[in-house]
Amino acid sequence: MEIKDQFYQYIQQLQDTITTKVEKIDGTVKFREDLWERPEGGGGRSRIIENGNVFEKGGVNISAVHGALPQSMQAYFGVQEADFFACGLSLVLHPKNPMVPTVHANWRYFEMYDKKGQLVDQWFGGGQDLTPYYLFEEDAMHFHSICKRACDLHDTDFYALYKKKCDDYFWNAHRNEARGIGGLFFDYCKASENRSMQDWYNFVTEVGDSFLEAYIPIVIKRKNLEYTDKQRDWQEIRRGRYVEFNLVHDKGTLFGLKTNGRIESILMSLPPHVQWVYDHTPETDSEEERLLTVLQHPKEWML
Amino acid sequence: MEIKDQFYQYIQQLQDTITTKVEKIDGTVKFREDLWERPEGGGGRSRIIENGNVFEKGGVNISAVHGALPQSMQAYFGVQEADFFACGLSLVLHPKNPMVPTVHANWRYFEMYDKKGQLVDQWFGGGQDLTPYYLFEEDAMHFHSICKRACDLHDTDFYALYKKKCDDYFWNAHRNEARGIGGLFFDYCKASENRSMQDWYNFVTEVGDSFLEAYIPIVIKRKNLEYTDKQRDWQEIRRGRYVEFNLVHDKGTLFGLKTNGRIESILMSLPPHVQWVYDHTPETDSEEERLLTVLQHPKEWML
Repeated sequence: MEIKDQFYQYIQQLQDTITTKVEKIDGTVKFREDLWERPEGGGGRSRIIENGNVFEKGGVNISAVHGALPQSMQAYFGVQEADFFACGLSLVLHPKNPMVPTVHANWRYFEMYDKKGQLVDQWFGGGQDLTPYYLFEEDAMHFHSICKRACDLHDTDFYALYKKKCDDYFWNAHRNEARGIGGLFFDYCKASENRSMQDWYNFVTEVGDSFLEAYIPIVIKRKNLEYTDKQRDWQEIRRGRYVEFNLVHDKGTLFGLKTNGRIESILMSLPPHVQWVYDHTPETDSEEERLLTVLQHPKEWML
Repeated sequence: MEIKDQFYQYIQQLQDTITTKVEKIDGTVKFREDLWERPEGGGGRSRIIENGNVFEKGGVNISAVHGALPQSMQAYFGVQEADFFACGLSLVLHPKNPMVPTVHANWRYFEMYDKKGQLVDQWFGGGQDLTPYYLFEEDAMHFHSICKRACDLHDTDFYALYKKKCDDYFWNAHRNEARGIGGLFFDYCKASENRSMQDWYNFVTEVGDSFLEAYIPIVIKRKNLEYTDKQRDWQEIRRGRYVEFNLVHDKGTLFGLKTNGRIESILMSLPPHVQWVYDHTPETDSEEERLLTVLQHPKEWML
């Protein structure tokens, strides 16, 4: 089977596995499924959860699209007219309880063809990262340790490399702080002398397979913790930073918006309830300030 | 007095006039004032109101900045190294009651100089526009009639021209709808054969002087109307669109974020409480749907 078919099959199964598990943890609501078609070719299967007991809002979406590479993407990739195929799974989960972190993950595969339909380029990309509102160091270490284990099975240099890329990518430049406490981010994973596309497939699906183990134990541990209205306000204010990152800096989001993607599937990443308070500053020596310090100075969690 | 000094004096006075009036209407809270300096030259006076009886959040900010034109602005204006001076007043008011529209206004003046300090270009820009959550046609007509009157005193072509520019500018392209029901938007107002910079000054300040008359009567008329939780939800969902426009499309905001402006003064425009609900669609024949139809098909209010 071709890599693209293997991978498309993989993300379909992974979507099932993840949504089944998330529904089980939530216990009260089910994902709503929306199938959509892209007029220029392909489509997707979005699964959205809202107003759950544990998950206030989230989406676990897959898509597989193809056709002529849109002009905006030609400029982006620095290529001329070409055809493309792209498929991937994107997920964001926004828990209700501020003690449970928001999580984001994405695994994707891309092919480009010349005018004769010959494959001229292909690569994988993706990653997974955590955005806490209250920092439990052991949760951060757990998440990173699972990320590292998945990496180490393929290359002991990967974790340090992709952890750094993640910190760099999810940097909310206008706020001088990270969106969250990171994880993994990789892109343009192409065949080379010492790594075939099949090797990359094995690595990317290893990370995909690690997702539930990286995230779900944290949810189970924190979902029933008590919290105050003030802690909920802090969560909603921090969610504002999440919105700022996604709308101002995130290439995936802007890309989708500018290439006429399915808006509701792209913007499912935005949190349900959000606040913007003028010049909000946490109290000295508070838990909120402690989180900010770590976001301003990304940490090594695996030392 | 030079135009730049005249205009800077004007916006300082206008800030006082507007904040005094807004405080009087609100009746419960006062603006907080923050003076700030720009390391590269100049600074501003931000005035922020929060948690009022009528106004949930808002800012009426002035700034006057100068120095070397940042590189990102060189590219934007298509010029080489230059010095600049810019001053202006920016305001956004987010009322609590969903029956009262959000309002935005901005009046600004820009000068550019060559390396010898010679003035090489100068222009005015600005406008004012209304974003209702429930559409009262008489309010839209009132707002536009005051805009038109201010325009007509200077040129009977201005209203149609700047009303159109406003509809075009505040177009939330990825949603295929306008941010609000418009008003006026103008930019690069430069001296020409039949209009001096002093003429433009007179026009721009005419619009500035019209602001309170355009907006305040609407606030007074609607601020005590009853509303339901569902109507409040709708307001918060629509505020999400406001955020999307400001962070994805608004040149002023992106400009500020990318040129190291004062973040809290730029992002004071973001509403206090916001919601994103997946694939939200108003009920058929509802007031909410009626608003959407008008936003999707900008109307002429002065026919």
